[in-house]
Amino acid sequence: MAIRLLTAQIAQKIDEELMSSAGGFSVDQLMELAGFSVAQAVSRVYQRNTHPNVLVVVGPGNNGGDGLVAARHLCHFGYKPKIFYPKQSSKDLYQRLTTQCKNLAIPVLTENLGQELKQTDLILDAIFGFSFKGDIRDPFGDVIKALIESKVPIASVDIPSGWDVEEGPVREPAIQPEMLISLTAPKLCAKHFRGKRHFVGGRFVTPDFEKRFELNLPAYEGTDQVVEIPVQGKL
Amino acid sequence: MAIRLLTAQIAQKIDEELMSSAGGFSVDQLMELAGFSVAQAVSRVYQRNTHPNVLVVVGPGNNGGDGLVAARHLCHFGYKPKIFYPKQSSKDLYQRLTTQCKNLAIPVLTENLGQELKQTDLILDAIFGFSFKGDIRDPFGDVIKALIESKVPIASVDIPSGWDVEEGPVREPAIQPEMLISLTAPKLCAKHFRGKRHFVGGRFVTPDFEKRFELNLPAYEGTDQVVEIPVQGKL
Repeated sequence: MAIRLLTAQIAQKIDEELMSSAGGFSVDQLMELAGFSVAQAVSRVYQRNTHPNVLVVVGPGNNGGDGLVAARHLCHFGYKPKIFYPKQSSKDLYQRLTTQCKNLAIPVLTENLGQELKQTDLILDAIFGFSFKGDIRDPFGDVIKALIESKVPIASVDIPSGWDVEEGPVREPAIQPEMLISLTAPKLCAKHFRGKRHFVGGRFVTPDFEKRFELNLPAYEGTDQVVEIPVQGKL
Repeated sequence: MAIRLLTAQIAQKIDEELMSSAGGFSVDQLMELAGFSVAQAVSRVYQRNTHPNVLVVVGPGNNGGDGLVAARHLCHFGYKPKIFYPKQSSKDLYQRLTTQCKNLAIPVLTENLGQELKQTDLILDAIFGFSFKGDIRDPFGDVIKALIESKVPIASVDIPSGWDVEEGPVREPAIQPEMLISLTAPKLCAKHFRGKRHFVGGRFVTPDFEKRFELNLPAYEGTDQVVEIPVQGKL
């Protein structure tokens, strides 16, 4: 059975159910597990000795929060991450996640992206996730353009930022990441992913849940928080 | 430099600092990382094919919360955990962690411990942690006695339950676990641990923090959330 690619509506519903009183998860918990899985997936593909300088580009919402958690874990794993975070949220959760990164001496930058990209081995794209729609707001249009023009390899968290969650790269210019880490399950836009490696992270889905939503996820191994799946665009 | 064994006071101070506005962590986050590290450590020593039936014995506080998180991850890792949870807290966090386990069809039991222990391959002792002091309240005196008498191997979370955090096994009868998973750093009582394997879990301590508290923790490898250390009682 093929892995199910989720519509925006189903992705939203799964997220809501996990955090409902029936699911029992807090956003802190899910974000910790999601961000850890992103960091673990990155470490499978880009080694800390060949790609130490990871620029985590953080957006204003939950996808950005996953990025902040991933940055912290990458630092613990021996990478030298920096965070580019031009629109910082006043929400307590994001502020706490930022504090945790600053306490690890991870630089948190708000400008000079072009200069920074010259010293970057890998971009971790955590700008927009599955709830993104409408127009790309400032400054993220320019940010996305700069990431593309830099030619630095990009690993995208859940969705390549700026893509439509179902239709894929409908806005120009579009990110084409080398790596994609889908959280909980891939979204429909993954059909348009033509990069090298695709992982699923977020080992918290119950068998009942997986069955009800017909996710057909592959089995995780050992204590892994990620599992590699075929690149859909190449099928 | 030897790993520092913490007094109760220092352990308390570290916990408070991590969760202060300066540290930025929420209890949900720390418990998720702690519980995951416990499950990962267990999987290093007791395989799911030889020790599938793990009975997680859960106390009324944070040590119990770590146990609930560990039970969930062990289930995802392919073990068949059950939870023995005789004094269930009304606190929202513990109720949510319990819901997450029930959603995985993990049985949550409140009685017939003796019977249950006959079908148990491994006890995960998550009754009391470093903040335990004073007398052992009902029903945990009888529970600890039953765990000891069962002769089933015990893995203890942070502190063998009933031990004094600094003095060790001062109350009779005392648990002597086969495995100890110290969270953040070992406590002074670890000097009295005479089991086989000792791990430290909780990869969230900053270098600054480690230096300031002179923890001298060993280095974690790869994406590991646990690191094995020598058994102190055998030094």
